[in-house]
Amino acid sequence: MAGSTFGTIFRITTWGESHGEGVGVIVDGVPSGIPLEQNDIQEMLDKRRPGQSQYTTPRNETDTVSILSGVFEGKTTGTPISLFVKNKTQRSKDYSEIASYYRPGHADYTYHKKYDHYDYRGGGRSSGRETIGRVAAGAIAKKILHLLGISVVAYTTSIGPIGISSFCKEDIEKNPFRMPDLDAAKQTEQFVQEQMKQLNSVGGVIECVVSNLPTGLGEPVFEKLDANLAKAIMSIGAVKGFEIGDGFLASTQTGLEHNDGFFNDNGTIKKRTNHSGGVLGGISDGSPLILRAAIKPTPSIAALQKTVTKDLEEIDISIKGRHDPLIVPRAVVVIEAMTAITILDALLLNMTSQFDRVKQFYDK
Amino acid sequence: MAGSTFGTIFRITTWGESHGEGVGVIVDGVPSGIPLEQNDIQEMLDKRRPGQSQYTTPRNETDTVSILSGVFEGKTTGTPISLFVKNKTQRSKDYSEIASYYRPGHADYTYHKKYDHYDYRGGGRSSGRETIGRVAAGAIAKKILHLLGISVVAYTTSIGPIGISSFCKEDIEKNPFRMPDLDAAKQTEQFVQEQMKQLNSVGGVIECVVSNLPTGLGEPVFEKLDANLAKAIMSIGAVKGFEIGDGFLASTQTGLEHNDGFFNDNGTIKKRTNHSGGVLGGISDGSPLILRAAIKPTPSIAALQKTVTKDLEEIDISIKGRHDPLIVPRAVVVIEAMTAITILDALLLNMTSQFDRVKQFYDK
Amino acid sequence: MAGSTFGTIFRITTWGESHGEGVGVIVDGVPSGIPLEQNDIQEMLDKRRPGQSQYTTPRNETDTVSILSGVFEGKTTGTPISLFVKNKTQRSKDYSEIASYYRPGHADYTYHKKYDHYDYRGGGRSSGRETIGRVAAGAIAKKILHLLGISVVAYTTSIGPIGISSFCKEDIEKNPFRMPDLDAAKQTEQFVQEQMKQLNSVGGVIECVVSNLPTGLGEPVFEKLDANLAKAIMSIGAVKGFEIGDGFLASTQTGLEHNDGFFNDNGTIKKRTNHSGGVLGGISDGSPLILRAAIKPTPSIAALQKTVTKDLEEIDISIKGRHDPLIVPRAVVVIEAMTAITILDALLLNMTSQFDRVKQFYDK
Amino acid sequence: MAGSTFGTIFRITTWGESHGEGVGVIVDGVPSGIPLEQNDIQEMLDKRRPGQSQYTTPRNETDTVSILSGVFEGKTTGTPISLFVKNKTQRSKDYSEIASYYRPGHADYTYHKKYDHYDYRGGGRSSGRETIGRVAAGAIAKKILHLLGISVVAYTTSIGPIGISSFCKEDIEKNPFRMPDLDAAKQTEQFVQEQMKQLNSVGGVIECVVSNLPTGLGEPVFEKLDANLAKAIMSIGAVKGFEIGDGFLASTQTGLEHNDGFFNDNGTIKKRTNHSGGVLGGISDGSPLILRAAIKPTPSIAALQKTVTKDLEEIDISIKGRHDPLIVPRAVVVIEAMTAITILDALLLNMTSQFDRVKQFYDK
Repeated sequence: MAGSTFGTIFRITTWGESHGEGVGVIVDGVPSGIPLEQNDIQEMLDKRRPGQSQYTTPRNETDTVSILSGVFEGKTTGTPISLFVKNKTQRSKDYSEIASYYRPGHADYTYHKKYDHYDYRGGGRSSGRETIGRVAAGAIAKKILHLLGISVVAYTTSIGPIGISSFCKEDIEKNPFRMPDLDAAKQTEQFVQEQMKQLNSVGGVIECVVSNLPTGLGEPVFEKLDANLAKAIMSIGAVKGFEIGDGFLASTQTGLEHNDGFFNDNGTIKKRTNHSGGVLGGISDGSPLILRAAIKPTPSIAALQKTVTKDLEEIDISIKGRHDPLIVPRAVVVIEAMTAITILDALLLNMTSQFDRVKQFYDK
Repeated sequence: MAGSTFGTIFRITTWGESHGEGVGVIVDGVPSGIPLEQNDIQEMLDKRRPGQSQYTTPRNETDTVSILSGVFEGKTTGTPISLFVKNKTQRSKDYSEIASYYRPGHADYTYHKKYDHYDYRGGGRSSGRETIGRVAAGAIAKKILHLLGISVVAYTTSIGPIGISSFCKEDIEKNPFRMPDLDAAKQTEQFVQEQMKQLNSVGGVIECVVSNLPTGLGEPVFEKLDANLAKAIMSIGAVKGFEIGDGFLASTQTGLEHNDGFFNDNGTIKKRTNHSGGVLGGISDGSPLILRAAIKPTPSIAALQKTVTKDLEEIDISIKGRHDPLIVPRAVVVIEAMTAITILDALLLNMTSQFDRVKQFYDK
Repeated sequence: MAGSTFGTIFRITTWGESHGEGVGVIVDGVPSGIPLEQNDIQEMLDKRRPGQSQYTTPRNETDTVSILSGVFEGKTTGTPISLFVKNKTQRSKDYSEIASYYRPGHADYTYHKKYDHYDYRGGGRSSGRETIGRVAAGAIAKKILHLLGISVVAYTTSIGPIGISSFCKEDIEKNPFRMPDLDAAKQTEQFVQEQMKQLNSVGGVIECVVSNLPTGLGEPVFEKLDANLAKAIMSIGAVKGFEIGDGFLASTQTGLEHNDGFFNDNGTIKKRTNHSGGVLGGISDGSPLILRAAIKPTPSIAALQKTVTKDLEEIDISIKGRHDPLIVPRAVVVIEAMTAITILDALLLNMTSQFDRVKQFYDK
Repeated sequence: MAGSTFGTIFRITTWGESHGEGVGVIVDGVPSGIPLEQNDIQEMLDKRRPGQSQYTTPRNETDTVSILSGVFEGKTTGTPISLFVKNKTQRSKDYSEIASYYRPGHADYTYHKKYDHYDYRGGGRSSGRETIGRVAAGAIAKKILHLLGISVVAYTTSIGPIGISSFCKEDIEKNPFRMPDLDAAKQTEQFVQEQMKQLNSVGGVIECVVSNLPTGLGEPVFEKLDANLAKAIMSIGAVKGFEIGDGFLASTQTGLEHNDGFFNDNGTIKKRTNHSGGVLGGISDGSPLILRAAIKPTPSIAALQKTVTKDLEEIDISIKGRHDPLIVPRAVVVIEAMTAITILDALLLNMTSQFDRVKQFYDK
């Protein structure tokens, strides 16, 4: 079944495998008249690219994006924007070993069972490379939100057992883990290097904050803003958990602790706290939207693991080649992208909620 | 925007408000030929009904469901099944107080901002009563899965700070909290009564397990099984977090700890562990599917809270009437329903993945 | 597969069979704040009701609609509107004969093949009674369009071989065929009575005009306004053909004949002619939108027909009971309904086409 | 709003403009294991290509397609197939004239009104070049249907006033108009050449027949097979009308004339006639499916026409360059493509209609 499309009004369709011709995305439903150039998209892709630090895979890809349609004389036309990133010519390589067994933690087994015939090279469609299309589309969504005064910022709050204990936005890009706390980043460095020595990998948690969001986004009862964000975020390969606001902590709170009281802030209604994370009843409440995603450790490790071949033989494997010991820093930008895409779609969908505003729109 | 519909092949559309004529659901895409009677649905609704224990609101509703279409001579016909639950005639009541201010933790404020005109009585559409439609539809999904040999079971794993430490399936229905551990239930009883005395409320965590699931369900990359489950579960009013398998714990694990090794179990491939929670690459892997939802404390409490009126006056309120001090036990069945609905849709969608099987289907 | 839902932003879901409890529709995505009462819907249903003249089936139904949700204090709330029409208690009747064979021109055979188990009484779900939900939803759409200054008017242009040769809007409701030409109606009367004597039935053509439509509705390239109208109209049971503007006649024209030249009408751009029927490139062009639907003769006739039983026995049948010798007059209101529903959805979807207008919307 | 996607299970997303980098399509939901190579698609594109005869535009394009994803070792993998056709480098050209006014019969005016900013070169997104994506996707659909024993054949039945009076399938590709009647083709040649001398253009009618279609395709009540075919066909730029079976002729028939009687054909049920065109109640009935599309004359003509500039000045224009005097022959393959795409989607959707067959599928 067709599953590569996400969104209703602002809609993306990604395509491409790790070792095919390339990867790309069709971004449809972009309103016309928005200034857009290659660099708007490239900048965000560069944050996702391999080889940014010693903690990411050194696969030699520049991931240069081309805009193939939907932009004319520097502005969007309202027609679908096709974005394309060529895969570098892969040197001829022997995939017979990797093709023979199921890697633990990977989708080899499930793709084989579901499709019978699949591209086993480098994960094929289940590869992290598929997120290039998401990030490219997210760059457009983020830019549009920016033009509307809305910002989307994601960062790492923990790697393995090490969590941040302070927040400085400027520090996010100053360390290889995208942590807003340089002390925590330093400890993380040591922790990750130890794990790398053991040919092991680690996971972490990413938080994303959307500021200056209008009230009213989200469509009850199934297209709630947080429900669609959950789907968007959980559709990213390595994500195993999703929270909004206090998340799982809320399950241990009492009503008095969790409820956010309203107050009058010089004529506008605000909440004294933000345990809800910016969403009430699935609709944005004017407070910053706060979500978190749990990222599992990279499944590809060189340490010895037990698995079976396709012929059911039990074997010990050590996955060759160098892999990201953690994908969290690169996933930060994917979380940002999927959040921006979901928020923008909700923002466009919300325009029809009140009849008076529909009437005003057409009376002009 | 239309937001009351969920699912692609098996699709539900809920409608109704807390204090309107009633609530209901259209269940479309049900395959023909399935035996179905009122009691199949009523049984599951009875588990959601208020008044089951001293810990649930005593609102006097029998929530009797009627099947209005889609069933003929005791079997489904493949046409939409309309299910209806009448609201009991509400006694004339003065809603002017509740209409005047925004209840903290409720959707009053966001509905007002989004729609300008809304039904403020008892939460209107954002009321927990909307979940009647979900549970009624879920009962059908659960029955179909059962006929295919698949079981869906949900239960409470924690209330406030108290978690289960053992698991006995038979005990789930033997305590008012739907905990599979009677000792934990006993402690919970004491904890909840204390909070009730303080006119306060509590939250908890619900787990849901799907057993005997075929391999291959879920459509990469956006209609992944876990992504759709996340949306389904997060679309339930009080849910603030979602996990699959080890969830947030996975973020603290290493690859060696998290990866599930495959082995040969007398000719079939199995996983030694199930950290993944039954999903790899968004596709079911043949292990039990395990998900968890964080439920926030009931927002309606009689304890004093600060808020503002619609005229921006800051006031102290105490929400009148008796409310569920915790909705977790009743939410268990809603989680079960939304899980069953999502699984069934994925199961039907998966039928077209391999050409050979499509050809066999039509060659018969 | 779920097939009972139509529309994206403004979305309807119909349910119900001819001889079940009743029929209904959920209308979702209605903007909030629109005054709506039962009579707004009943009036349009009354035009669809059987028994309006000697040319329609005398089935004794009042088709009284109830609004079960989505309206509060006389105005829409933005939540789904559930509309319900009870079927009158059907007298106990023997359906064994009708259940034994396939009626020519009906869906008995295809429903049986598709679903194996189906409700054969009175056509079940394929009955014309299903259109009650469409008309009820269409009444809401038509009212909203009216509030925006847009009118939708349908009428009969031919019955069998007899076509109209003049147009007087006021005459439409003055004859049993809904023709805007009383002379043609008179000839039609004679023609239809002759066919009735022969226990036969007739078809006809319905035209629908939408006036004062804004420019810009329709989303290239698959959600074109005329493409969605074609789907909406062709989804009505008895429709066998659809045209926009000059339709099939356009296939015989030259470019010089067909192209509509633009001119300057005191500062606004207009077309000198309207061969396009109000749509260029799938987008409304500001001229009146004109569509036509071909309605086949009622399949239920008392005249002798050849068919087979479910046991493959060849038999001669004469369908008992009185049936509409033509359904065209009652279909007029269904065409109007489906047109209004499609136009309104396009109108809401169009609000996001230009970024400047999105920005203005949120800057307010 | 996103409008470039069509289909549910088998879903296509087209992109690209006439004078951009190229055009393409993402074909998602293709079952795995189908042999597919470039030539399977190229062959059908070659029938759509310009320059096939003196009656089509000589724009020098080879329209060579590349498969960028979704195929591995010669077979489909179930992941999205990205198909790309590069536009030939357009010579630098002055578009200022064409940019200054609205061409009658084209979408210049409506795109300008809808989007404010648009690509006016060669029609941009509304150009016939967009159909390359449809044909490429249609080639895949047609191949899959072929493997299931289902054939899809389209041809021209009339050009201007000249209609076919005999049918020989082999003759379709033996004349430049794709008529199955060489005599009619000869008359057409003369007629078209006359119109070309007058710098004028002509339209025509295309018929498409689907043979060996299983019974049961189509999902009542809105996803009826004929409703979706109508949308598919009407979404093609130049189509102004759609018919199934007897179409508009049915409106002049009586029930006795139109109803197709069933009979027992050596143990299988068949219809004596096929006025319905292979669809009853929106579901395929086992007879050949027959549809027709009315194609308007090419709007681009060199003959003098009246129009206005964007500054509202009334002018006379003669559209420069050589254009197809008729697009009917090239549209034949587009009709075939959209029909195949729609049929295949319905075929996949139908697999879930009966519970017994779902159970059998998973019991294997």
